Amino acid sequence: MTESKQPIEFYFDFSSPYGYLMNEKIDALASQYDRQVRRHPILLGVIFQSTGTRPPVDGTSSKSKYMWHDFARSARHLGLPYTPPSRFPLATQNAARAYYWLNAQDGALAKQFAQAAYRACFVEDRDISSPEIVLEIAAKIGVDREQLATALQTPEIKAQLKDECEQALATGVFGSPHIIIEGEHFFGADRLPQIEHWLKTGGF
Amino acid sequence: MTESKQPIEFYFDFSSPYGYLMNEKIDALASQYDRQVRRHPILLGVIFQSTGTRPPVDGTSSKSKYMWHDFARSARHLGLPYTPPSRFPLATQNAARAYYWLNAQDGALAKQFAQAAYRACFVEDRDISSPEIVLEIAAKIGVDREQLATALQTPEIKAQLKDECEQALATGVFGSPHIIIEGEHFFGADRLPQIEHWLKTGGF
Repeated sequence: MTESKQPIEFYFDFSSPYGYLMNEKIDALASQYDRQVRRHPILLGVIFQSTGTRPPVDGTSSKSKYMWHDFARSARHLGLPYTPPSRFPLATQNAARAYYWLNAQDGALAKQFAQAAYRACFVEDRDISSPEIVLEIAAKIGVDREQLATALQTPEIKAQLKDECEQALATGVFGSPHIIIEGEHFFGADRLPQIEHWLKTGGF
Repeated sequence: MTESKQPIEFYFDFSSPYGYLMNEKIDALASQYDRQVRRHPILLGVIFQSTGTRPPVDGTSSKSKYMWHDFARSARHLGLPYTPPSRFPLATQNAARAYYWLNAQDGALAKQFAQAAYRACFVEDRDISSPEIVLEIAAKIGVDREQLATALQTPEIKAQLKDECEQALATGVFGSPHIIIEGEHFFGADRLPQIEHWLKTGGF
């Protein structure tokens, strides 16, 4: 009997550039170490409001300028395509709700949606805050557009996203991407080498 | 005739845990790519006040707890000893001034001092805000204690540290460790893989 390993918990906001980088890398890394990935799209606005944190990119400071530069350089470092989004930050509740609704029906399709929505935002520079664009992205991977449009308006799906944000906060999530492996927290796409080290050694 | 390469500019505060990690790693990396390292100890308090940034570790938030955990884990990841400092943050103007005074006379000795002061803080948990302890650390590596004690009180050395902080701000430095390679900025010890990638490829 093989011991079954807990999934890697992956918290992110669909408007987070480093979240996009992590989303592109985490599945291959997880599967290399026989792990599944459990995605939790959340709203950073809710997280920041509750923790009293300010968004890392908030104007024309040296740090903000650096971060815009670093988003693109980090993508190149990881060999990933990246286009600076012309709208930032974006409201991502529609994308997050679509994810949860899809995931309740078909985990693989939800994962495909997460990748498509992230690429729409950070490669194709599309406005994923728009419900129409979220529906279009979903339709392109085979989702029934009308069913999803209806689902996005239900109180159940709204409550689910709210719950996920609250649970993320209770778990100690404070940003995006935020990875948890059996209680061990890793914040940021730049923790990929440590995550790999951790998975390889079972903790160090 | 070989083209001479610009030194790697390394900005740090002696109370920065990630600065300690960078200080332990940057010289070997630089010399692997025929570079020198030019150190600039600065005062993060001055930087944060001017940029309106808050220190990343400032209480009992999820993020602060994570960062304390990550300091130690990052050290283990890099194979470095680390002891959580019992005093934090520390005033580091004495250590920074000692560095500049030493560096004006003997660059190798100043580098040795930087390493000794950082290890005193982050391995031996000593209070490097104390002028007495700074003098003791310097004396142990062969510095004349009385001469240094006098130097630390001169308006010249105080002005030099002030100038360095102002120049760091003007250059776009916003935290510690902050590395600049021919105008390319890298913030954080977690950028070591990107720094190596950059040095190896001449930019990517």
